[in-house]
This record gives sequence, C-alpha cells and structure tokens, in this order.
Amino acid sequence: MTIEFQVDPARYRHWRLTVDGPVATLAMDVDEQGGLRPGYELKLNSYDLGVDIELYDAVQRLRFEHPGVRVVVLTSAKEKVFSAGANIRMLAAAEHGWKVNFCKFTNETRNGMEDASAHSGQVWLAACNGSASGGGYELALACDHIMLVDDRSSAVSLPELPLLGVLPGTGGLTRVTDKRLVRRDRADYFATRAEGIGGRRAAAWGLVDEVVPPPQWTIKVAERAAELAEGSNRPGDATGISLSPLAKTRTATAIAYRHVRADLDHDRGCAEITVAGPTAAPGAPADDAFWTLAMTRELDDLVLDLRTNEPELGTWLLRTTGDADLVLAHDALLLARTADDWLANEIVLYLKRTLKRLDVTSRSLIALIEPGSCFAGSLLELALAADRSYHLAGVFEDEDPDASPAAITVGPMNLGPLPMGNDLTRLATRFVGDPGALAAVEEHQGKPLPADDAERLGLVTFAPDDLDWADEVRIAVEERASFSPDALSGLEANYRFPGPETIETKIFGRLSAWQNWIFQRPNAAGPEGALRRFGTGQRADFDRRRV
Amino acid sequence: MTIEFQVDPARYRHWRLTVDGPVATLAMDVDEQGGLRPGYELKLNSYDLGVDIELYDAVQRLRFEHPGVRVVVLTSAKEKVFSAGANIRMLAAAEHGWKVNFCKFTNETRNGMEDASAHSGQVWLAACNGSASGGGYELALACDHIMLVDDRSSAVSLPELPLLGVLPGTGGLTRVTDKRLVRRDRADYFATRAEGIGGRRAAAWGLVDEVVPPPQWTIKVAERAAELAEGSNRPGDATGISLSPLAKTRTATAIAYRHVRADLDHDRGCAEITVAGPTAAPGAPADDAFWTLAMTRELDDLVLDLRTNEPELGTWLLRTTGDADLVLAHDALLLARTADDWLANEIVLYLKRTLKRLDVTSRSLIALIEPGSCFAGSLLELALAADRSYHLAGVFEDEDPDASPAAITVGPMNLGPLPMGNDLTRLATRFVGDPGALAAVEEHQGKPLPADDAERLGLVTFAPDDLDWADEVRIAVEERASFSPDALSGLEANYRFPGPETIETKIFGRLSAWQNWIFQRPNAAGPEGALRRFGTGQRADFDRRRV
Repeated sequence: MTIEFQVDPARYRHWRLTVDGPVATLAMDVDEQGGLRPGYELKLNSYDLGVDIELYDAVQRLRFEHPGVRVVVLTSAKEKVFSAGANIRMLAAAEHGWKVNFCKFTNETRNGMEDASAHSGQVWLAACNGSASGGGYELALACDHIMLVDDRSSAVSLPELPLLGVLPGTGGLTRVTDKRLVRRDRADYFATRAEGIGGRRAAAWGLVDEVVPPPQWTIKVAERAAELAEGSNRPGDATGISLSPLAKTRTATAIAYRHVRADLDHDRGCAEITVAGPTAAPGAPADDAFWTLAMTRELDDLVLDLRTNEPELGTWLLRTTGDADLVLAHDALLLARTADDWLANEIVLYLKRTLKRLDVTSRSLIALIEPGSCFAGSLLELALAADRSYHLAGVFEDEDPDASPAAITVGPMNLGPLPMGNDLTRLATRFVGDPGALAAVEEHQGKPLPADDAERLGLVTFAPDDLDWADEVRIAVEERASFSPDALSGLEANYRFPGPETIETKIFGRLSAWQNWIFQRPNAAGPEGALRRFGTGQRADFDRRRV
Repeated sequence: MTIEFQVDPARYRHWRLTVDGPVATLAMDVDEQGGLRPGYELKLNSYDLGVDIELYDAVQRLRFEHPGVRVVVLTSAKEKVFSAGANIRMLAAAEHGWKVNFCKFTNETRNGMEDASAHSGQVWLAACNGSASGGGYELALACDHIMLVDDRSSAVSLPELPLLGVLPGTGGLTRVTDKRLVRRDRADYFATRAEGIGGRRAAAWGLVDEVVPPPQWTIKVAERAAELAEGSNRPGDATGISLSPLAKTRTATAIAYRHVRADLDHDRGCAEITVAGPTAAPGAPADDAFWTLAMTRELDDLVLDLRTNEPELGTWLLRTTGDADLVLAHDALLLARTADDWLANEIVLYLKRTLKRLDVTSRSLIALIEPGSCFAGSLLELALAADRSYHLAGVFEDEDPDASPAAITVGPMNLGPLPMGNDLTRLATRFVGDPGALAAVEEHQGKPLPADDAERLGLVTFAPDDLDWADEVRIAVEERASFSPDALSGLEANYRFPGPETIETKIFGRLSAWQNWIFQRPNAAGPEGALRRFGTGQRADFDRRRV
C-alpha cells in the first residue's frame, strides 16, 4: 500500500477546522473506524499516521490559506477526552521501521506547530477539555500555552513507561524538562504515574499553564485565545492563498511533479532526485504557483513519500537544473519582502522546515554538481544538506564539450534565513569551530564558484574531473548500498549535527535514538513485551537486566 | 564470573608504564592470550574489558602516583600497529548488555584522559607508531595531540561502518566533528574507508595533528612531548601518593568497604548503598586515607562493580550517615587548597569524575534522606544526582523519637567544582531555566535545611512524614522494579541532562543511544549480521530497508 500525504480539509475524517476571525479552532474528532491500516480502532482520539497526515495538512493550510488566523485553539470534539495519543494496537502491530518513521513525521508536525508560534504570529493554544495522555499530551506540549479542564478526572500524563515499556518518544521527555522547565525529579515522578497529574498540581509543577473549572471553561479559553491574538504581528486583513493539489504522477520507477522528479532505481538502491529552478523572473508571490513555494511543496511531498514508501532506496542523489540567476532572483525577492509580506515570510519558513526534514531523513544524501545544474542560494542548501557532494571540474567532454562548467553560488538565503534544527545555518554547521572558513565563503557571496574554488573554500567534498567522475560517483553509490542501512542511519544522524544542540536536535538525535532502541527491545516489542501485551490482561514479562 | 576493577601495575598484562621525569610513556602491548573471557585472541593490540580496566588503572595512577608527569605519551609496543580497537570476536560473542556496559566504561576512561589534559596539567599525546583503527583511533582521539608515523602504510581509520555494520561508538563520530572539527562531509568519507587515511591527507583534514617520517619519529615524539610539558602547570617536584588496594569484601548479598557499603537485595531488585561521612576533622591531604579520596575510590569501584556484575539490581537506594559539619570541613579544606596543592586538586577532580559516572549509570537512583544522614556538600551531590529524593519530615517516632530530623546542607562543593558532563553543576541542571530558584538555594548555603525548607527550595522531590514514609518509599521501589528496565534507562538518560549539551553528553546521550540501537539490530548482531559474520569470509546479509 502506497501512503499518500496529500489531503484536503473536505476529505478530513479526523479533524474539524473552523475559523472565526483571528481564532481558528482545530478540533480532534478521530473516526474510530478510520484507521489507515486494518486491525485497530482509533478509540479515545488516539491517532495513527492517517490522523497525523491530516493534522499536518491543517497546520500547513492554516499558515497559507488562513493568514488572518492569529491563534489556533487545539481541542477535542469528544467528551471528556482530549487525546489518548498514538494508537497502541497500531504501534504493537507495526514493524520497527514503520514505528520509527511514524514518530519522525509526527515530531516534524509538532515542530511545525512550534515554528508557527515562534515565527509566524500564529500561536497554538492547547485547550485540553479532557485527559491528554501520552502522544496526546505531547501534542499539547507542542503548543505555546496549555489549558486543562479541572473536573477532578481530567489529567495530563505520559503513561508510556508504566503501561507500554517505551518512551514518550514524540518529544515529550525533552519538552517537559527543556521547554516547560519541569524539574527533572518531578518529571521522573510524573512519567511513572500512569494516571497522570491534573488539577492544581499540574499547574504548580508547570505541566500545564492553567487549570480551569468546567463552568468557566468556554469563556476562559475564548479569553485566552483573544489575549494571545493581541500579541500577534499577523496582518488582520490578509487574504490567504489556496494550496491546490500537486500535479503528481507516480509509477514503480518514477515520481514526477512540475519542478521535482525522482527516478527510483531499485537495483542500485537509490533515488535520483532532480529539482528544477524557475524558468522566469519572479513577480511578487501571489499564489501557490510561485516557484519557491511550488518547488518546496513538491520536495516536501517527495521526501515524505520516499521515506514512507521506498525504504529500500537508501541513497538519494540530489541534482538541480536551471538558471542560477533566476533562483537567486527569487531568493532576493522573498527576502526583501519577508518583513512586510506574510506570504513571502511563510514561503521562506516552509522552505526552512522542508530542508530540516531532509536533515533528519535517514537516507544517504549525495549531491551531484554537474554542468547545467543550479546549486545557487536556496537550491545550494540541497548540496549543503548532503552527506557528501561531488562537483565536476570542467565538463563532460564526450557529452557536451562546449557546456559551461558547473558552478555553485552562495547567496543570502544560505547565510541566515534557513537554519537547521541546531539553529545554525548549514554553512555555519559545515564550518563549526572554523569562523575563518565561514567568513571566506561569505566574501564570495554572489560569485559563481567553479569546482576548484568550491573545493578550496570547503563547499564541496570532491571535485573530480571528467576522467574520474563516473567511477567516483559509481563507487560512492555502490559502496553506500553495501553498508549496513542501520549503521548508516546512526552515522548520518550524528555527523549531520556537529556543534550546539537545541530542543529540536535533542528530540531527533537523542530522544528518538533511545526510543528506536527501546522499540527494538524484547521488553517492548517481543511477544512478552509490554507493547505487545498491552490490553491483553497479561502483564509483560521483562528481562530484568539493565544494560 | 565476577569482574573486578581493581588492578595494579605489577599485574598489568597489556600495558607498560614508564616514567622519565615529566614524561610518562604508556605503551600498549596487549597479550593475545590475555582475554578476560575465553573464545578470542587479542591480536594487533585489540582490546577487551580487561585491557581497558588496566588502562583505567594507569590513567588513575598517573594522576595520583605520578604528579610530576606533565605529558603521557600513549603509544604501542608492537611493530607497525598502534591499536586495532575493540576486539571484534569479543564484541560479536558478547551479549547486548555487555557490549553497552563495555562501551560506557571505555568512554568514561577516555573522558578521564581528556579531563587530565584539560584540568590536571597532564597532557595526553598519542604517538601512533602504526595504524590506529576503530577504537584504536578513538583512543588517540581522546588525546590532546595526535602524531602518526608516515610510513606509507600506517593510517587512522574508523572501519566500523564498512566492516562491522556498527558505529565508532566510543566517541569517535562526535570527537571527529566536534573536537577535531573535521568537516562533516570529509568525516563521512573517512568513515566509509575501511583502510582509513594516512599521510599528508590525514593531517590536512585534521584527523591527526602531524605526520612524521619514520627516521624522525623518535626524536619528533620526544620534542613534542617536551613542548607539551613546557605548557603544564604541574609542580615539578611533587611526590605522588600510593593508591593502596581497597579493603573490599564481597558476598552474594553485600559489598563492603571502609566508608561505602551496598546491600544487594535481589528479591526487590535493588542495591541499598550507604556512604559514611568522615569521623574526624581533616588534616591536609597526604595519602589515600584522606576521607574524600578514600570514599571516592570506594564509590567508584562500587559503581563499576554493580554496573557490571549486578545488572538485575535496577534501583540503587542512596543513603548517607555521619556528621555534616565534618563533610563540609573536608570540602572547605580541599577547595581552599586546589589552586596550590596538586593532590587536593586531583581529589576534587576525581570526585567529579566519579559523580559523572553515577549520572550515566543506567540504574534508577533514589536518595533517602533520613535522621542520621549526612547529605551535605560533596555528599549532597548523591541526592542531586538521583532521579528522585525522599526527605523525611520529622523523625521516625517508633525508632528514635529524640533523633534530630534529617537536614541537608548546600555548600561550596555544590556550586561549581563538580560539574556534570553538560558543564553545569547538578544544582544548575536541576533549576535549568530558573535562575531565581538557583539563587534562592545559594542564599541558604551552609544552613542545615530540614525537609520542609528543602522541599520548598526544590532540593528534594518529596518530604513525607513518618506516617507516609514507609509506604511511599516501598511503592517507589516496587514500582521501579515493575517497569521495563530498557524504558527506564532511556527515560533516565534523557531526564538527567536537560539544557545544554557538550561533547561528553553527546557521546553518552546521542552517539551511545544510536550505537545501542545498532548493536541490537539484526543487521549487526543477527546471525547474518556484519558483526557476527566478520572474519568468516561470508558477507553480511542486510535487510536493506532504512528505518
């Protein structure tokens, strides 16, 4: 079954989005029978990948289609329950890789909510009108403000440890201590209480921001939403643009969009991805045909598609085609407008999020910089995100001796607006601890850099000439396919984030790695493990040895 | 088989330590037949836990017994090989828990070498007189300066990925990028080359600091050692103290030293650890009987013993007994002398390292603060390292109604000299993001704080009274034993390190978690996995799916 990530509100089965001036309400109303796969019921607003695909769609549309929205109230349409978190039978039945990929995507969506709160003047407010458990509470943790109804039974909880023998793996552990600053010993106690903590103690410990008695609930939520809306810098009169369905064709050997294409080579275990630059000078962004937005939407969908549906394509070759000047012109136009143009701002932020997705993708990324390529500004980020890059010195003599040698160009988009999860640009990450190298690159801003310059400045890994190119690239791809996919994932996850850490990198690098480990352990995933035995009435039978 | 960590140079099988004025030479000369367990030969200076136990002993003795040593030249006594790293047959045959525990200990020893270079004026110089592969190169990476012989065959390498399907898990990936600042794409390439990189490229890329042709090797190493010795602040005329064998008794139910004792309760899955404070006022430290040093040595040995030999004791209850004023007097004396007294300085640094060991121990740590306890200054760190603490409000009425209620005392030792791996004190980590709470605690420095004050200041988790104490503690211990040991390890590893990250926390929290995951994967540890098939002539048969 091929999973598609494109959806639209008219087809939502699990969410209800309503907009009332500056306040949107996104109500979770999961269809119990609407699971993506057979074998489980999505009770108590528990979710699976299908529910989260709709959530992601809503998060995106709120930013592009509803720019007037300043506050998103995330709540539940069900009585007495906010959300029970990821569906446990789904998790128990899922293969290891599915679980890991599912958690990664849900993490990215929650980071996207935080991105909206932090950078887009669209603040998320969790209105927990019932218990928020596990992933349900983690969803609330991704919001800027958490309200919990104080009805003597509703609580927030992270019951993964006591009930399932796994971790709250969607950022919960990290956000409790690092975002909400709950003292770590209290956080420890909290994570051992299956029933969670509600009422005044939840607020006193910082697990929620406030608790509200039921009679005042509706009015208090509205008040809080209005207050948060006051602080937003969103233009009140902005009109959204429509995110139209992507023109996508998918066969066994290719996925093609307008600007992005991937050829799927199952024999070599690689996807050859080509991103095309714009073909004309930009006008002010006005709809989803603006190249940067259109390309980003396609790339985003492609990354999600390949990650979920093509796990055996372990290497992604990244190529670009087109006119570098036109890419730089699009970049310049966007950056000149971000302060005053909500849409330009949203496009840059979306590009940022999509590139971050690439950074945490467990595939080997190899950039190939050849004549006719277009690694400039925003597209250069693809090469900078890669684990390795090859830049042809000269041209392919047999193919086109008169071609212009490939050049790469650093632009303003590489110097700030597109930070990685570690809050550094990809260039700063590349030269971490070596400010001189970074300064030298900045001096060459705007200049097309042929292979020898690019190599000298440290912007590419290798610069083979025509004689060596084919062999070097072939060996790199073959070698990559010969290595353990797991060791590669671990290697890349470590190497891609040298230097400082943030909540985001801690979630992906540290928390997720532990969760992946635990998901693989017999104590969780084995036949006698807690995850498999949950709900059977049988207790898990643990191997008691600590490791 | 019970593993003992106590050893002394006269019994070394694998290392030769020679001291020549300010320069010590520690030469690796692994006895092929000297493996700790049967079934493998330690060829090519490959190592197992037994080799590393001796290395740890040497690192410790160099600091206490050889204070005049300013440079430690780490080299090999074998021809043409520095070290081949962790023994692969040993790893392939070892159980998961053994591998993880082994890597943790080896990591701690390498961090200890860096601690000597950074804080003790005892700088480590890696003189790689032959190839340094995998863990062999990681050993060199822990040194301050790396020299490699340029003989056209010697190289440094991290062949774990291509040969074994695992990660360089002893800090290698992190140190290459974050310590040596090797560009991440070069680091990627390097980690795919089983044969490694030698000669000028190794130096140009920063993998080593210099390469030296064989004819100049001996003189250059001596020159470099002399230069590094120049920069040291070590007192040239200091005389070391002798680290005498610990008075230790070990039975099936208890491990006892002079100041430290552990009762092993296999039924409840816990170790009850009691640390006794000093019994007299301190004189200047002059030998290993000085309480802080003696207690630290015992605690260090106990932590290693329990981690290795008692994996089923998943919870450690931490108690203290004694006179708080005497602990604080020892602390004050040490801290007044660290600037001018090498031994006082070493004792504090050793206490710091030992407490760090506790921080990364995968056991639940619960501190019990009862009448007669002595959680003050350096011993208060035990409670601050714990995942949770219980402080009795009042006294045990039935046992001793006239006892003084337990109090804890914050002292200067809690406010700087004993940072965790994240470079923050345990107090600062506890109140990360809440400087007001930290300041309030600092104002109470030196005052014995009874339970209600300690709870109000956030220094303890719970302060039950006599009526509730027994039940609360019992439930906490029983609950802990009922949870998945793996999920607990992941939970604790995340919660114990909120806030900023360092190379050290990245190694333990991020790199090790990935390595643990990979060690568990069929692609490495399964019958067709790379680790198990290494050396058999058969290639690994990988599940190609990325997760």
